Amino acid sequence: MKVYKIPEATVMRLSVYSRFLHQLLDEGVATVSSGDIAKGVGVSSAQVRKDLAYFGEFGTRGVGYRVDELYGHLMKILGLDQTWNIVLVGAGKLGSALALYQGFAERGFHISTIIDVDPARIGTKLGNVLVEPLDVLQDRVKENNIRVGVVSVPASAAQDVTDRLVQAGIKAILNFSPRVLKVPSSVILRNVDLSVNLEVLSFNLALKR
Amino acid sequence: MKVYKIPEATVMRLSVYSRFLHQLLDEGVATVSSGDIAKGVGVSSAQVRKDLAYFGEFGTRGVGYRVDELYGHLMKILGLDQTWNIVLVGAGKLGSALALYQGFAERGFHISTIIDVDPARIGTKLGNVLVEPLDVLQDRVKENNIRVGVVSVPASAAQDVTDRLVQAGIKAILNFSPRVLKVPSSVILRNVDLSVNLEVLSFNLALKR
Repeated sequence: MKVYKIPEATVMRLSVYSRFLHQLLDEGVATVSSGDIAKGVGVSSAQVRKDLAYFGEFGTRGVGYRVDELYGHLMKILGLDQTWNIVLVGAGKLGSALALYQGFAERGFHISTIIDVDPARIGTKLGNVLVEPLDVLQDRVKENNIRVGVVSVPASAAQDVTDRLVQAGIKAILNFSPRVLKVPSSVILRNVDLSVNLEVLSFNLALKR
Repeated sequence: MKVYKIPEATVMRLSVYSRFLHQLLDEGVATVSSGDIAKGVGVSSAQVRKDLAYFGEFGTRGVGYRVDELYGHLMKILGLDQTWNIVLVGAGKLGSALALYQGFAERGFHISTIIDVDPARIGTKLGNVLVEPLDVLQDRVKENNIRVGVVSVPASAAQDVTDRLVQAGIKAILNFSPRVLKVPSSVILRNVDLSVNLEVLSFNLALKR
Protein backbone atom coordinates (compact mmCIF):
# COMPACT_ATOMS: atom_id res chain seq x y z
CA MET A 1 0.00 0.00 0.00
CA LYS A 2 1.49 3.30 -1.10
CA VAL A 3 0.62 6.02 1.33
CA TYR A 4 1.63 9.65 1.26
CA LYS A 5 2.01 11.85 4.32
CA ILE A 6 -1.30 11.57 6.15
CA PRO A 7 -2.32 14.32 8.58
CA GLU A 8 -2.68 13.05 12.11
CA ALA A 9 -6.17 14.54 12.29
CA THR A 10 -7.12 12.24 9.40
CA VAL A 11 -5.76 9.19 11.22
CA MET A 12 -7.78 10.13 14.28
CA ARG A 13 -10.93 10.51 12.17
CA LEU A 14 -10.32 7.14 10.49
CA SER A 15 -10.31 5.72 13.99
CA VAL A 16 -13.67 7.35 14.69
CA TYR A 17 -15.11 6.14 11.35
CA SER A 18 -14.00 2.58 12.09
CA ARG A 19 -15.83 2.63 15.45
CA PHE A 20 -18.98 3.90 13.76
CA LEU A 21 -18.72 1.17 11.10
CA HIS A 22 -18.28 -1.45 13.81
CA GLN A 23 -21.51 -0.22 15.35
CA LEU A 24 -23.26 -0.52 11.95
CA LEU A 25 -21.90 -4.06 11.55
CA ASP A 26 -23.38 -4.94 14.93
CA GLU A 27 -26.70 -3.53 13.75
CA GLY A 28 -26.53 -5.62 10.56
CA VAL A 29 -26.26 -2.63 8.20
CA ALA A 30 -24.75 -3.72 4.84
CA THR A 31 -24.00 -0.49 2.97
CA VAL A 32 -23.32 3.08 4.01
CA SER A 33 -22.80 6.40 2.20
CA SER A 34 -20.20 9.02 3.05
CA GLY A 35 -23.17 11.16 4.11
CA ASP A 36 -24.31 8.50 6.60
CA ILE A 37 -20.81 8.26 8.05
CA ALA A 38 -20.56 12.05 8.20
CA LYS A 39 -23.87 12.30 10.04
CA GLY A 40 -23.00 9.42 12.36
CA VAL A 41 -19.75 10.93 13.54
CA GLY A 42 -20.42 14.65 13.14
CA VAL A 43 -18.14 15.78 10.29
CA SER A 44 -18.96 16.89 6.72
CA SER A 45 -19.39 14.24 4.03
CA ALA A 46 -16.75 16.05 1.95
CA GLN A 47 -14.35 15.47 4.86
CA VAL A 48 -15.20 11.77 4.96
CA ARG A 49 -14.58 11.40 1.22
CA LYS A 50 -11.33 13.36 1.43
CA ASP A 51 -10.06 11.26 4.33
CA LEU A 52 -10.86 7.99 2.57
CA ALA A 53 -9.41 9.23 -0.72
CA TYR A 54 -5.91 9.18 0.82
CA PHE A 55 -6.12 5.42 0.65
CA GLY A 56 -7.59 4.92 -2.82
CA GLU A 57 -11.10 4.26 -4.07
CA PHE A 58 -13.31 2.26 -1.74
CA GLY A 59 -16.95 2.94 -2.59
CA THR A 60 -19.22 2.63 -5.59
CA ARG A 61 -20.79 5.84 -6.87
CA GLY A 62 -24.49 5.95 -6.00
CA VAL A 63 -24.25 2.84 -3.84
CA GLY A 64 -21.77 3.86 -1.20
CA TYR A 65 -19.50 1.58 0.75
CA ARG A 66 -19.96 -2.01 1.82
CA VAL A 67 -19.72 -1.69 5.60
CA ASP A 68 -17.74 -4.89 6.16
CA GLU A 69 -15.24 -4.07 3.41
CA LEU A 70 -14.69 -0.48 4.47
CA TYR A 71 -14.37 -1.52 8.11
CA GLY A 72 -11.77 -4.12 7.15
CA HIS A 73 -9.84 -1.60 5.05
CA LEU A 74 -9.82 1.00 7.83
CA MET A 75 -8.74 -1.49 10.48
CA LYS A 76 -5.89 -2.58 8.20
CA ILE A 77 -4.86 1.02 7.51
CA LEU A 78 -4.85 1.71 11.25
CA GLY A 79 -2.69 -1.35 11.83
CA LEU A 80 -5.52 -2.95 13.79
CA ASP A 81 -5.73 -6.14 11.73
CA GLN A 82 -3.32 -7.56 14.31
CA THR A 83 -2.94 -7.40 18.07
CA TRP A 84 -0.14 -5.31 19.52
CA ASN A 85 1.64 -6.30 22.67
CA ILE A 86 2.42 -3.28 24.80
CA VAL A 87 4.80 -2.65 27.67
CA LEU A 88 3.55 -0.20 30.27
CA VAL A 89 6.19 1.41 32.49
CA GLY A 90 4.85 3.02 35.65
CA ALA A 91 2.09 1.34 37.64
CA GLY A 92 0.99 4.36 39.70
CA LYS A 93 -2.55 5.75 39.65
CA LEU A 94 -2.55 6.66 35.97
CA GLY A 95 -0.57 3.54 34.97
CA SER A 96 -3.03 1.33 36.85
CA ALA A 97 -5.96 3.01 35.14
CA LEU A 98 -4.29 2.53 31.75
CA ALA A 99 -3.50 -1.13 32.52
CA LEU A 100 -7.17 -1.75 33.29
CA TYR A 101 -8.59 0.49 30.55
CA GLN A 102 -10.94 -1.68 28.49
CA GLY A 103 -10.77 0.50 25.40
CA PHE A 104 -7.26 -0.73 24.61
CA ALA A 105 -8.13 -4.43 24.44
CA GLU A 106 -11.20 -3.66 22.30
CA ARG A 107 -8.91 -2.22 19.64
CA GLY A 108 -6.31 -4.98 19.79
CA PHE A 109 -3.84 -3.41 22.21
CA HIS A 110 -2.74 -5.92 24.81
CA ILE A 111 -0.70 -4.66 27.74
CA SER A 112 1.39 -7.78 28.15
CA THR A 113 4.13 -6.40 30.41
CA ILE A 114 3.94 -3.93 33.28
CA ILE A 115 7.12 -2.51 34.80
CA ASP A 116 7.62 -0.48 37.96
CA VAL A 117 10.54 0.30 40.27
CA ASP A 118 8.50 0.46 43.51
CA PRO A 119 9.09 -2.73 45.55
CA ALA A 120 5.58 -2.32 46.99
CA ARG A 121 4.09 -2.63 43.50
CA ILE A 122 6.37 -5.32 42.06
CA GLY A 123 4.75 -8.73 42.37
CA THR A 124 1.19 -7.34 42.55
CA LYS A 125 -1.17 -7.81 39.62
CA LEU A 126 -3.14 -5.35 37.52
CA GLY A 127 -5.91 -7.35 35.89
CA ASN A 128 -4.04 -10.57 35.27
CA VAL A 129 -0.68 -9.01 34.46
CA LEU A 130 2.15 -9.09 37.01
CA VAL A 131 4.01 -5.88 37.84
CA GLU A 132 7.70 -6.65 37.27
CA PRO A 133 11.00 -4.86 37.96
CA LEU A 134 12.87 -2.79 35.39
CA ASP A 135 15.60 -5.38 34.84
CA VAL A 136 13.25 -7.77 33.02
CA LEU A 137 12.29 -5.10 30.45
CA GLN A 138 14.68 -6.16 27.69
CA ASP A 139 13.76 -9.85 28.01
CA ARG A 140 10.01 -9.23 28.00
CA VAL A 141 10.20 -6.97 24.94
CA LYS A 142 11.98 -9.77 23.06
CA GLU A 143 9.84 -12.65 24.37
CA ASN A 144 6.55 -10.90 23.63
CA ASN A 145 7.67 -9.19 20.44
CA ILE A 146 6.68 -5.81 21.88
CA ARG A 147 7.12 -2.72 19.69
CA VAL A 148 5.02 -0.20 21.59
CA GLY A 149 5.75 1.25 25.03
CA VAL A 150 3.61 3.43 27.29
CA VAL A 151 5.39 5.74 29.73
CA SER A 152 3.38 6.71 32.82
CA VAL A 153 6.16 7.48 35.30
CA PRO A 154 6.93 10.76 37.11
CA ALA A 155 8.63 13.43 35.00
CA SER A 156 11.96 12.92 36.72
CA ALA A 157 12.15 9.27 35.61
CA ALA A 158 10.63 9.64 32.15
CA GLN A 159 13.76 10.20 30.03
CA ASP A 160 15.63 7.34 31.70
CA VAL A 161 12.70 4.97 31.15
CA THR A 162 12.42 6.14 27.55
CA ASP A 163 16.13 5.50 26.92
CA ARG A 164 15.71 1.98 28.30
CA LEU A 165 12.67 1.33 26.12
CA VAL A 166 14.57 2.48 23.03
CA GLN A 167 17.55 0.32 24.02
CA ALA A 168 15.22 -2.66 24.45
CA GLY A 169 14.06 -2.23 20.86
CA ILE A 170 10.75 -0.39 21.30
CA LYS A 171 9.72 1.42 18.09
CA ALA A 172 6.86 3.62 19.27
CA ILE A 173 6.28 5.35 22.60
CA LEU A 174 3.16 6.89 24.07
CA ASN A 175 4.21 9.37 26.75
CA PHE A 176 1.77 10.33 29.52
CA SER A 177 4.44 12.04 31.61
CA PRO A 178 4.63 15.84 31.51
CA ARG A 179 8.29 15.67 30.41
CA VAL A 180 9.40 16.49 26.84
CA LEU A 181 11.27 13.35 25.79
CA LYS A 182 14.11 12.79 23.33
CA VAL A 183 14.07 9.70 21.12
CA PRO A 184 16.07 8.69 18.03
CA SER A 185 14.39 9.59 14.73
CA SER A 186 13.68 5.90 14.10
CA VAL A 187 11.34 5.82 17.10
CA ILE A 188 7.84 7.30 16.96
CA LEU A 189 6.96 9.41 20.00
CA ARG A 190 3.52 10.65 20.91
CA ASN A 191 2.83 12.82 23.92
CA VAL A 192 -0.52 12.69 25.66
CA ASP A 193 -1.45 15.62 27.84
CA LEU A 194 -4.86 14.98 29.27
CA SER A 195 -5.36 18.62 30.16
CA VAL A 196 -5.34 19.61 26.47
CA ASN A 197 -8.78 18.04 26.29
CA LEU A 198 -10.03 20.36 29.03
CA GLU A 199 -8.38 23.29 27.27
CA VAL A 200 -10.44 22.67 24.14
CA LEU A 201 -13.48 23.04 26.40
CA SER A 202 -12.23 26.12 28.23
CA PHE A 203 -11.31 27.70 24.89
CA ASN A 204 -14.88 27.22 23.67
CA LEU A 205 -16.40 28.40 26.94
CA ALA A 206 -14.12 31.45 26.91
CA LEU A 207 -15.41 32.36 23.42
CA LYS A 208 -18.85 32.82 24.99
CA ARG A 209 -17.64 35.31 27.61
CA MET B 1 -12.46 39.48 20.88
CA LYS B 2 -13.97 38.53 17.54
CA VAL B 3 -13.03 34.97 16.66
CA TYR B 4 -14.03 32.96 13.61
CA LYS B 5 -14.39 29.18 13.56
CA ILE B 6 -11.05 27.86 14.78
CA PRO B 7 -10.02 24.31 13.89
CA GLU B 8 -9.63 22.12 16.96
CA ALA B 9 -6.14 21.15 15.80
CA THR B 10 -5.22 24.84 16.05
CA VAL B 11 -6.55 25.08 19.60
CA MET B 12 -4.51 22.04 20.56
CA ARG B 13 -1.38 23.56 19.00
CA LEU B 14 -1.99 26.86 20.83
CA SER B 15 -1.96 24.80 24.00
CA VAL B 16 1.40 23.31 23.01
CA TYR B 17 2.83 26.74 22.10
CA SER B 18 1.73 28.14 25.45
CA ARG B 19 3.59 25.36 27.31
CA PHE B 20 6.72 26.05 25.28
CA LEU B 21 6.45 29.79 26.02
CA HIS B 22 6.04 29.02 29.71
CA GLN B 23 9.29 27.07 29.55
CA LEU B 24 11.00 30.04 27.85
CA LEU B 25 9.67 32.38 30.56
CA ASP B 26 11.18 30.09 33.18
CA GLU B 27 14.47 30.29 31.31
CA GLY B 28 14.30 34.08 31.23
CA VAL B 29 14.00 34.35 27.43
CA ALA B 30 12.49 37.73 26.44
CA THR B 31 11.69 37.43 22.73
CA VAL B 32 11.00 34.54 20.38
CA SER B 33 10.46 34.15 16.61
CA SER B 34 7.85 31.94 14.98
CA GLY B 35 10.82 29.87 13.80
CA ASP B 36 11.98 29.35 17.39
CA ILE B 37 8.51 28.27 18.44
CA ALA B 38 8.25 25.99 15.41
CA LYS B 39 11.56 24.34 16.23
CA GLY B 40 10.72 24.07 19.90
CA VAL B 41 7.47 22.23 19.37
CA GLY B 42 8.13 20.44 16.07
CA VAL B 43 5.83 22.13 13.54
CA SER B 44 6.60 24.44 10.57
CA SER B 45 7.02 28.16 11.25
CA ALA B 46 4.35 28.84 8.60
CA GLN B 47 2.00 26.77 10.73
CA VAL B 48 2.85 28.80 13.84
CA ARG B 49 2.21 32.07 12.02
CA LYS B 50 -1.05 30.75 10.55
CA ASP B 51 -2.29 29.57 13.95
CA LEU B 52 -1.48 32.88 15.61
CA ALA B 53 -2.98 34.86 12.74
CA TYR B 54 -6.45 33.61 13.68
CA PHE B 55 -6.25 35.90 16.69
CA GLY B 56 -4.80 39.03 15.12
CA GLU B 57 -1.30 40.46 14.94
CA PHE B 58 0.94 39.68 17.88
CA GLY B 59 4.55 40.00 16.77
CA THR B 60 6.82 42.66 15.32
CA ARG B 61 8.38 41.89 11.96
CA GLY B 62 12.08 41.12 12.31
CA VAL B 63 11.87 41.12 16.11
CA GLY B 64 9.39 38.38 16.79
CA TYR B 65 7.17 38.07 19.79
CA ARG B 66 7.64 39.21 23.36
CA VAL B 67 7.45 35.92 25.24
CA ASP B 68 5.47 37.26 28.20
CA GLU B 69 2.96 39.07 25.98
CA LEU B 70 2.39 36.16 23.63
CA TYR B 71 2.10 33.77 26.56
CA GLY B 72 -0.49 36.01 28.18
CA HIS B 73 -2.45 36.28 24.92
CA LEU B 74 -2.47 32.53 24.38
CA MET B 75 -3.53 31.77 27.93
CA LYS B 76 -6.38 34.24 27.58
CA ILE B 77 -7.44 32.76 24.23
CA LEU B 78 -7.42 29.29 25.78
CA GLY B 79 -9.56 30.54 28.64
CA LEU B 80 -6.70 29.87 31.06
CA ASP B 81 -6.50 33.37 32.49
CA GLN B 82 -8.86 32.06 35.17
CA THR B 83 -9.19 28.85 37.16
CA TRP B 84 -12.01 26.47 36.31
CA ASN B 85 -13.76 24.43 38.95
CA ILE B 86 -14.53 20.95 37.67
CA VAL B 87 -16.88 18.23 38.83
CA LEU B 88 -15.61 14.69 38.26
CA VAL B 89 -18.22 11.94 38.24
CA GLY B 90 -16.87 8.42 38.69
CA ALA B 91 -14.07 7.76 41.16
CA GLY B 92 -12.96 4.37 39.83
CA LYS B 93 -9.44 3.63 38.62
CA LEU B 94 -9.50 6.15 35.78
CA GLY B 95 -11.46 8.71 37.79
CA SER B 96 -8.96 8.46 40.65
CA ALA B 97 -6.08 8.91 38.25
CA LEU B 98 -7.78 11.97 36.76
CA ALA B 99 -8.53 13.39 40.22
CA LEU B 100 -4.85 13.14 41.11
CA TYR B 101 -3.48 14.13 37.68
CA GLN B 102 -1.15 17.08 38.28
CA GLY B 103 -1.37 18.35 34.72
CA PHE B 104 -4.87 19.71 35.34
CA ALA B 105 -3.97 21.94 38.27
CA GLU B 106 -0.94 23.28 36.40
CA ARG B 107 -3.27 24.65 33.73
CA GLY B 108 -5.83 26.08 36.12
CA PHE B 109 -8.30 23.19 36.23
CA HIS B 110 -9.34 22.47 39.79
CA ILE B 111 -11.36 19.34 40.45
CA SER B 112 -13.42 20.77 43.28
CA THR B 113 -16.14 18.11 43.46
CA ILE B 114 -15.93 14.33 43.05
CA ILE B 115 -19.10 12.26 42.79
CA ASP B 116 -19.58 8.49 42.92
CA VAL B 117 -22.48 6.14 43.63
CA ASP B 118 -20.40 3.40 45.31
CA PRO B 119 -20.94 3.56 49.11
CA ALA B 120 -17.42 2.15 49.54
CA ARG B 121 -15.96 5.19 47.79
CA ILE B 122 -18.25 7.87 49.20
CA GLY B 123 -16.59 9.58 52.17
CA THR B 124 -13.05 8.67 51.07
CA LYS B 125 -10.71 11.35 49.77
CA LEU B 126 -8.79 11.70 46.50
CA GLY B 127 -6.03 14.18 47.19
CA ASN B 128 -7.87 16.53 49.51
CA VAL B 129 -11.27 16.28 47.84
CA LEU B 130 -14.05 14.24 49.39
CA VAL B 131 -15.93 11.70 47.25
CA GLU B 132 -19.63 12.58 47.61
CA PRO B 133 -22.93 10.99 46.57
CA LEU B 134 -24.85 11.90 43.43
CA ASP B 135 -27.57 13.81 45.28
CA VAL B 136 -25.22 16.69 46.18
CA LEU B 137 -24.31 17.28 42.51
CA GLN B 138 -26.72 20.15 41.85
CA ASP B 139 -25.77 21.99 45.07
CA ARG B 140 -22.02 21.64 44.48
CA VAL B 141 -22.28 22.90 40.90
CA LYS B 142 -24.04 26.03 42.16
CA GLU B 143 -21.88 26.60 45.24
CA ASN B 144 -18.61 26.22 43.34
CA ASN B 145 -19.77 27.89 40.12
CA ILE B 146 -18.80 24.77 38.16
CA ARG B 147 -19.29 24.83 34.38
CA VAL B 148 -17.19 21.83 33.35
CA GLY B 149 -17.89 18.17 34.13
CA VAL B 150 -15.74 15.10 33.59
CA VAL B 151 -17.49 11.75 33.10
CA SER B 152 -15.47 8.66 34.03
CA VAL B 153 -18.21 6.17 34.84
CA PRO B 154 -18.98 2.83 33.19
CA ALA B 155 -20.72 3.02 29.80
CA SER B 156 -24.05 1.88 31.25
CA ALA B 157 -24.23 4.88 33.62
CA ALA B 158 -22.74 7.52 31.33
CA GLN B 159 -25.90 8.93 29.72
CA ASP B 160 -27.73 9.16 33.04
CA VAL B 161 -24.77 10.97 34.62
CA THR B 162 -24.57 13.29 31.62
CA ASP B 163 -28.25 14.15 31.83
CA ARG B 164 -27.80 15.00 35.51
CA LEU B 165 -24.78 17.19 34.76
CA VAL B 166 -26.73 19.06 32.10
CA GLN B 167 -29.67 19.47 34.46
CA ALA B 168 -27.34 20.82 37.14
CA GLY B 169 -26.21 23.54 34.73
CA ILE B 170 -22.90 22.14 33.42
CA LYS B 171 -21.94 23.78 30.10
CA ALA B 172 -19.07 21.56 28.90
CA ILE B 173 -18.47 17.84 29.38
CA LEU B 174 -15.35 15.77 28.90
CA ASN B 175 -16.38 12.15 28.42
CA PHE B 176 -13.93 9.35 29.16
CA SER B 177 -16.59 6.63 28.97
CA PRO B 178 -16.81 4.54 25.78
CA ARG B 179 -20.47 5.54 25.36
CA VAL B 180 -21.61 7.99 22.67
CA LEU B 181 -23.47 10.64 24.66
CA LYS B 182 -26.33 12.97 23.77
CA VAL B 183 -26.30 16.53 25.06
CA PRO B 184 -28.34 19.65 24.16
CA SER B 185 -26.71 21.85 21.51
CA SER B 186 -25.97 24.48 24.17
CA VAL B 187 -23.59 22.06 25.93
CA ILE B 188 -20.10 21.36 24.58
CA LEU B 189 -19.21 17.67 24.58
CA ARG B 190 -15.76 16.23 24.01
CA ASN B 191 -15.07 12.51 23.94
CA VAL B 192 -11.69 11.19 24.97
CA ASP B 193 -10.78 7.74 23.75
CA LEU B 194 -7.33 6.96 25.06
CA SER B 195 -6.83 4.16 22.55
CA VAL B 196 -6.90 6.63 19.64
CA ASN B 197 -3.45 7.70 20.79
CA LEU B 198 -2.18 4.15 20.44
CA GLU B 199 -3.85 3.91 17.04
CA VAL B 200 -1.83 6.85 15.74
CA LEU B 201 1.24 4.81 16.70
CA SER B 202 -0.01 1.52 15.22
CA PHE B 203 -0.96 3.37 12.03
CA ASN B 204 2.58 4.67 11.69
CA LEU B 205 4.15 1.32 12.56
CA ALA B 206 1.84 -0.40 10.05
CA LEU B 207 3.09 1.96 7.32
CA LYS B 208 6.53 0.43 7.78
CA ARG B 209 5.32 -3.14 7.22
